[in-house]
Amino acid sequence: MANILNYETVALDENDNSVTIIDQTKLPNEVCLRKLYQAKEIWEAIYRLEVRGAPAIGVAAAFGIYILANKIKASSFSEFYEAFKEQKDYLNTSRPTAVNLSWALNRMEALCIASKDLSVAEIKEALRKEAHAIKAEDIDVCRRIGKHGLALLKPGDGILTHCNAGQLATCKYGTATAPIYLGEERGYGFRVFADETRPLLQGARLTAYELLAAGVDVTLICDNMSASVMQKGLVQAVLVGADRVAANGDAANKIGTAVVAAVAKQYGVPVYVCAPTSTIDLATRTGADIPIEERDAKEVTEMWYGKRMAPEGVKVFNPAFDVTSNELIAGIVTEHGVARVPYEESLKHIFEVADKKK
Amino acid sequence: MANILNYETVALDENDNSVTIIDQTKLPNEVCLRKLYQAKEIWEAIYRLEVRGAPAIGVAAAFGIYILANKIKASSFSEFYEAFKEQKDYLNTSRPTAVNLSWALNRMEALCIASKDLSVAEIKEALRKEAHAIKAEDIDVCRRIGKHGLALLKPGDGILTHCNAGQLATCKYGTATAPIYLGEERGYGFRVFADETRPLLQGARLTAYELLAAGVDVTLICDNMSASVMQKGLVQAVLVGADRVAANGDAANKIGTAVVAAVAKQYGVPVYVCAPTSTIDLATRTGADIPIEERDAKEVTEMWYGKRMAPEGVKVFNPAFDVTSNELIAGIVTEHGVARVPYEESLKHIFEVADKKK
Repeated sequence: MANILNYETVALDENDNSVTIIDQTKLPNEVCLRKLYQAKEIWEAIYRLEVRGAPAIGVAAAFGIYILANKIKASSFSEFYEAFKEQKDYLNTSRPTAVNLSWALNRMEALCIASKDLSVAEIKEALRKEAHAIKAEDIDVCRRIGKHGLALLKPGDGILTHCNAGQLATCKYGTATAPIYLGEERGYGFRVFADETRPLLQGARLTAYELLAAGVDVTLICDNMSASVMQKGLVQAVLVGADRVAANGDAANKIGTAVVAAVAKQYGVPVYVCAPTSTIDLATRTGADIPIEERDAKEVTEMWYGKRMAPEGVKVFNPAFDVTSNELIAGIVTEHGVARVPYEESLKHIFEVADKKK
Repeated sequence: MANILNYETVALDENDNSVTIIDQTKLPNEVCLRKLYQAKEIWEAIYRLEVRGAPAIGVAAAFGIYILANKIKASSFSEFYEAFKEQKDYLNTSRPTAVNLSWALNRMEALCIASKDLSVAEIKEALRKEAHAIKAEDIDVCRRIGKHGLALLKPGDGILTHCNAGQLATCKYGTATAPIYLGEERGYGFRVFADETRPLLQGARLTAYELLAAGVDVTLICDNMSASVMQKGLVQAVLVGADRVAANGDAANKIGTAVVAAVAKQYGVPVYVCAPTSTIDLATRTGADIPIEERDAKEVTEMWYGKRMAPEGVKVFNPAFDVTSNELIAGIVTEHGVARVPYEESLKHIFEVADKKK
């Protein structure tokens, strides 16, 4: 098995002309790298989940808009910006729920506008540096989430995770997996349970794969087995990522997270949402305001092999995310510390801490 | 699409030499009937879930032990009974959790013993009648569960069901589906959500299939989407079957039922367990005393196509059932009425009612 930890989830190619990603839809059966050159290729790589995970989507969008900007032939700022804005708005439609997509694109646009007095060549150079900065920050942020998350855990703990908020969802360490990787380095001996995460099986294909490659004790379960492992006392904490956290602490994450959270409440297990501040959207008041992407019924009825697992003609509801109510979340682990109930206040405080550090 | 409702889940063939079942592992892609002649064939059909669902397993075991008994060449009762007992004990090892298997086999054995003064030919004839009676009772019992269950529902209700406790799990009507079929006849216009039920997808392959064939409004969801549909207010009741109900009301059912029950509690939706008294085992004190079958890891890692969905070498936990705690169950719907908390008393009362009717 190729050690997936040796690969970069998202990388800018040295020609400044393309972005290389691991095509995650092919894992775990093959490690397939793809180079993206055109706007449509980038859009489709995000839409088709070839690159996925809120932080990785942000970095892919940042590098993506940079290489597209780099190809713009323009002599004035206004001409350049018009073309930039069009590409940015297009990429921004690729997926609706993860706020990191618009967060990264808005940050690139803000830099572009702030650089309007520079030459087009200088703006392009500034955009390149900003995209690299977004990636470097992602790695640093995940490392710090790992540190804050690890403080919530004890050696030997059983940890349940859902979907993939791992290295493959970020540029390194992951969010929900960062405390696990850090604990592994320090000999904590965690036992991890990975929900397979239907319909696209990111838990089975990606989380189990990367944790196994890292030598972590990982056991794969189906999504509907969480009550069984909790009843047996095998789980001391649930660690999940997030695609968008609202100002009140409601957290949108991969479909099934709200199910795990309800089960965890029943069995007295704390749920920690590991989320960089780039995923926290104070402009979104509550979870009810988060747009939830619905995807193709075939993801549920056909798996990947074209053979149907369900009768022809059956209706399917296939939301890609759900919202976990703030009351079910024991803490939101950010790079600036752990926010606790009441989240309206604690999340604001996290941003104040962040601003002071700038 | 073949109308599966026109087929019998389990039938004794007129030669009294074989049992015909629908091979449910082939659904929904093909309707494949299989004839079972030998003890090993019957055992494997149950073990491999070609015939599954607690009541259908009971009927298959009853017909199975009859055709095996019919082939015994013996001149005395003791010779006959020794061979009968050996076959019965063997069939009883095919699956551990559903109590209907041992319930049906014990009933056949009890009749055998009670008939010890008859000739071997007469005993065989008595066993044939008893097996047919078990099937006829199953149909009657399901019809009555439908009547009692329907009284708990309102026209237009959204109903979530897990796994298949439908016609394919019984001989007609199903248990959890009986109120749905009866409501359909009476124009209740239910909207049903069928959990696909990993790993073997009985919800997608069987429940969605048979409800669609019956013209019921059914929507397929993944197991981890229950919180989403409940958050949207689309579900007014959860109806599930059971493989064994303990004396205190704890109910073992297909893996994931305890997950649905915890989610339903979170969103204030009542959970009804639809179970014939043959599934209620007063000799099992609590859910902790119910043996839980663990099955092959490949069910989780490979689906049915031999292509891996998870990395080689990953550990898997694959329990086939879980236990839903009595506190999460709003009512246990039997053929003799609905039992409510406290179940120790109400279930005993149900059996007293049953005894009076005999």
